[in-house]
Amino acid sequence: MNKETKPILKSDLLEPFPDSRKIYVKGKIHNINVAMRQIWLNDTLDSDGNIEKNEPLTVYDTSGPYTDPHVKIDIRKGIPKIRQEWIESNPDLIKLDSLSSDFGKKRLNDKSLDNIRFDYVNRNPFVAKSGKKITQMYYAKKGIITPEMEYVAVRENQQLDELKSKIKFHKGENFGANLPDTYITPEFVRDEIASGRAIIPANINHPESEPMIIGRNFLVKINANLGNSPVTSSIQEEVEKAIWAFRWGADTIMDLSTGKNIHETREWIIRNSPVPVGTVPIYQALEKVEGKAEELNWEIFKDTLIEQAEQGVDFFTIHAGLLLHHIPLTVKRLTGIVSRGGSIMAKWCLAHHKESFLYTNFEEICEILAKYDVGISLGDGLRPGSIADANDKAQFAELETLGELTKIAWKHNVQVMIEGPGHIPMQRIKQNVDLQLKHCYEAPFYTLGPLTTDIAPGYDHITSAIGGAMIAWYGAAMLCYVTPKEHLGLPDREDVKTGVITYKLAAHAADLAKGHPAAQIRDNAMSKARFEFRWKDQFTIGLDPETAMKFHDATLPDEGSKVSHFCSMCGEHFCAMKTSYDVRELAKKLEEKAEEFKKSGSEIYIKQK
Amino acid sequence: MNKETKPILKSDLLEPFPDSRKIYVKGKIHNINVAMRQIWLNDTLDSDGNIEKNEPLTVYDTSGPYTDPHVKIDIRKGIPKIRQEWIESNPDLIKLDSLSSDFGKKRLNDKSLDNIRFDYVNRNPFVAKSGKKITQMYYAKKGIITPEMEYVAVRENQQLDELKSKIKFHKGENFGANLPDTYITPEFVRDEIASGRAIIPANINHPESEPMIIGRNFLVKINANLGNSPVTSSIQEEVEKAIWAFRWGADTIMDLSTGKNIHETREWIIRNSPVPVGTVPIYQALEKVEGKAEELNWEIFKDTLIEQAEQGVDFFTIHAGLLLHHIPLTVKRLTGIVSRGGSIMAKWCLAHHKESFLYTNFEEICEILAKYDVGISLGDGLRPGSIADANDKAQFAELETLGELTKIAWKHNVQVMIEGPGHIPMQRIKQNVDLQLKHCYEAPFYTLGPLTTDIAPGYDHITSAIGGAMIAWYGAAMLCYVTPKEHLGLPDREDVKTGVITYKLAAHAADLAKGHPAAQIRDNAMSKARFEFRWKDQFTIGLDPETAMKFHDATLPDEGSKVSHFCSMCGEHFCAMKTSYDVRELAKKLEEKAEEFKKSGSEIYIKQK
Repeated sequence: MNKETKPILKSDLLEPFPDSRKIYVKGKIHNINVAMRQIWLNDTLDSDGNIEKNEPLTVYDTSGPYTDPHVKIDIRKGIPKIRQEWIESNPDLIKLDSLSSDFGKKRLNDKSLDNIRFDYVNRNPFVAKSGKKITQMYYAKKGIITPEMEYVAVRENQQLDELKSKIKFHKGENFGANLPDTYITPEFVRDEIASGRAIIPANINHPESEPMIIGRNFLVKINANLGNSPVTSSIQEEVEKAIWAFRWGADTIMDLSTGKNIHETREWIIRNSPVPVGTVPIYQALEKVEGKAEELNWEIFKDTLIEQAEQGVDFFTIHAGLLLHHIPLTVKRLTGIVSRGGSIMAKWCLAHHKESFLYTNFEEICEILAKYDVGISLGDGLRPGSIADANDKAQFAELETLGELTKIAWKHNVQVMIEGPGHIPMQRIKQNVDLQLKHCYEAPFYTLGPLTTDIAPGYDHITSAIGGAMIAWYGAAMLCYVTPKEHLGLPDREDVKTGVITYKLAAHAADLAKGHPAAQIRDNAMSKARFEFRWKDQFTIGLDPETAMKFHDATLPDEGSKVSHFCSMCGEHFCAMKTSYDVRELAKKLEEKAEEFKKSGSEIYIKQK
Repeated sequence: MNKETKPILKSDLLEPFPDSRKIYVKGKIHNINVAMRQIWLNDTLDSDGNIEKNEPLTVYDTSGPYTDPHVKIDIRKGIPKIRQEWIESNPDLIKLDSLSSDFGKKRLNDKSLDNIRFDYVNRNPFVAKSGKKITQMYYAKKGIITPEMEYVAVRENQQLDELKSKIKFHKGENFGANLPDTYITPEFVRDEIASGRAIIPANINHPESEPMIIGRNFLVKINANLGNSPVTSSIQEEVEKAIWAFRWGADTIMDLSTGKNIHETREWIIRNSPVPVGTVPIYQALEKVEGKAEELNWEIFKDTLIEQAEQGVDFFTIHAGLLLHHIPLTVKRLTGIVSRGGSIMAKWCLAHHKESFLYTNFEEICEILAKYDVGISLGDGLRPGSIADANDKAQFAELETLGELTKIAWKHNVQVMIEGPGHIPMQRIKQNVDLQLKHCYEAPFYTLGPLTTDIAPGYDHITSAIGGAMIAWYGAAMLCYVTPKEHLGLPDREDVKTGVITYKLAAHAADLAKGHPAAQIRDNAMSKARFEFRWKDQFTIGLDPETAMKFHDATLPDEGSKVSHFCSMCGEHFCAMKTSYDVRELAKKLEEKAEEFKKSGSEIYIKQK
């Protein structure tokens, strides 16, 4: 019997956000209900005692059903399957009678796993009918707007059409991106998917996921990495971390498990994930050959792809661009190869003196993925592992190969994104985006940070949030988070939260800089609440209401101070914003005085040189 | 009797850094001993068992004598006065018989303050002899290299001349800054000071300070704000926070006290500060009129300047650029005026319908400051308080006035820097630097962050570190830190540490991006230690050894794992860097094979199209 047990759900993971409710916005084309969070705001009370109502604020919400008190959550059964109907009604799909992968079957029939296995009923996987094409990219090219496409269009707008009158719009600078002036339409989404500039990772075997889009003409997304390791952690912990990541804003998660029970851990995560789930299949393949890279082969890898595709993994990181002739370029690096997948494949290539089986079998990989609509995230196995190695020949040589592979994937209608570094000093970040867009034909760029300095272990969520915000502004579509434990240890639940919120703010800073129409509203709502001393609204509008309130209360704990009309930092006399109110009143009188002064010939309102 | 007591020094503030020693580098022109921190590194052990010695790493050190176990610290007596001899030997200075300010005298003679007063013996202040000019800027213009100038030249280099062979140098992109190719010379420092492009804040009454330089052709500096408030805190806490800030990397501190005993608190801080101390004199002036802005006047302000100059404050923030005609420009802002000094002066101007007394008396302010070599930090009273208000007319109108005042200060040989925002979305940051350099004739730019989004209260150290790193890369010379408590409450000691380290890493990221010759060394040392699994060296080279070790030990607590040759994150088989070693070995063989293959006509090493 396995030592682990099935996970249970702790109640703190289900807490709704304060002063918020879940709303579901209907579509116009399909029968869709797009989940968002609506935050109630308090009234504005001006100095004359007048009340002005503040409209509720709608924000993008990745937390899924966990924050909707009307949904009963039972993680042993999995969360509601919002895409089930769309999938079942697709005539080009069939439901299989059994799992197709050998490994999947073996695990299913292994009685010793019964006590940790997710109990699925009738969970046989879907697959495309023979000869049929079923990916979002295929439909987009055919001019078809799928429910997933309409869902993301509605979702990206955050009810912008109702709220846009509130925006003081800042023209952005988005380096050639092509944001629509008003709001995202389903047709715009379709066109972006068709061109390969954006992807909707949505495996037909992950009906629980709420569709989302990754592309530089949309809101910047963030990914949170999870997964157990040989050293530590359990299914319980990983499921908790996943739910915690959804809550705080992870748009996708990657399950990077490398320890025991990878298959079963993943099943628990996918069945309970409202966001797309990614993996790096070579990790599990390596476990299957007991960690010996040179014993990997195409058959084992292929079976792993099918195993995971039938569980519902939405995108695979595949390091197919690392070629034999790239490897010598890394020998003189300060930090060699720091991508796990990259180092495994490099070792395999050298041990066999052959080109990587991921590269030589890439067409077949695409054929498999196309049957389930699994996206490919082309791994950057040669990304730099230090500031010193950034933007070197090895890195950019691989990037060119990723571009070749992108074309092949698109030929098979497989959705593609391209992974990027890592570690880059600020002045070299933009070149990464420029070359990626050029070599990879504008496929979405998905970067890990990048860290902008290496000298702050323990703070790498911050060293990389700097690079992350910048690279997203320059055009990266999704950022992989970094937690404070990066380079040091495995993140726990609190680290996951810190990493997610740090990346959420970096992504949002980029949305603002790009001039995304829906991004400015939340900042303005916060600034207005701040200037009006609506303390509770400042907490609820912020990314982490809990922490903001805790920090406030550390200085001014009594309940009255949450409605006090001055800032706790300065005290009453030194509150600039309170004084600013007086100034505003005085300035009104000034306008009148100005007229008088001008008549009397005073120079005081004329700029002095 | 006052309720407060004299501060005591807690032993944890005196802990030396692990595996480090304080070194003192001699000058060539003057009798100076420039303090630095030297970190011992462990040997590299390669796979064949060969040992390679790693040279110790010298790093910039702001911690002063607190981290030198050879110096006995008694905060009741103040720290050693390293500049005393230079000051005493200056024939253009005289020592006064008593304090010059009325307020200073009153406090000195107030017996009720005896139990909180710093006991100084013979601490009568110095002042320039009548008709004599004594500022660093004056000497620089005359072609004189002062001990302070040589000190900062040696300090900026961090023994680069001995270490430069280790650098893999990244050409930076520093937007028109003019970093020397090799290392900083005293003559280069003198020239930068003479031109106004850099300042050395060094009041002749602050002999305890270790000279440092602020200018965009030098390492980016950071400031930490401290100070009690009417709401909370004590002398003990403020002194502790100050020492904590020095330890973690604050290059300057500002004492923004607004509560009780401002004069005495400041004395304790200055006598124990190895870094320059700044203040905002209008805050204390406002306390003197019991918080009523309209009752402020030039006489009270002037007495406050003299009081503080004779205590040894090194730079004053003065909001002299806020003019009456600017105020109407703020009325339609989302967040009005958010600078405390700005709002106070705006209120005064409107209440009196007069131009600010800071502006009308600016020449006399400069005359006073020149006598003590107090620098001016021209306050940006109209900086934006939200993303929505960034880069507006009010902000840039004031900036132009700051340029006019810069010229006046320089005429008096007063060193000047210019304060900047605040809250700016990323795409608008560069314009701030461009306009500041233009309007203010390249005087150093000293910015508060800026925050790049407003939606993350509790994480504003991060929202602003993004903007801080960017603005410093574009040319800001010093960054004022922001702590996690910003907008919410008063920072405690841990918040100060988080703020300082966050800003240190942002400043360092900018140094790297600018291509500062001394910046790359530390990153490379870290990367080498990381690739060689020298865990302890990774901790000591980092900005916060304690936290890094704690995070590491949370995953792998046993002592053996600190010398383990794999990464705790991934475990042995999944450690990319471990695999990378194997790859490197294999790649050596590949080189030989390559030759064979080429001879045999194989295509495998030729790039495939």
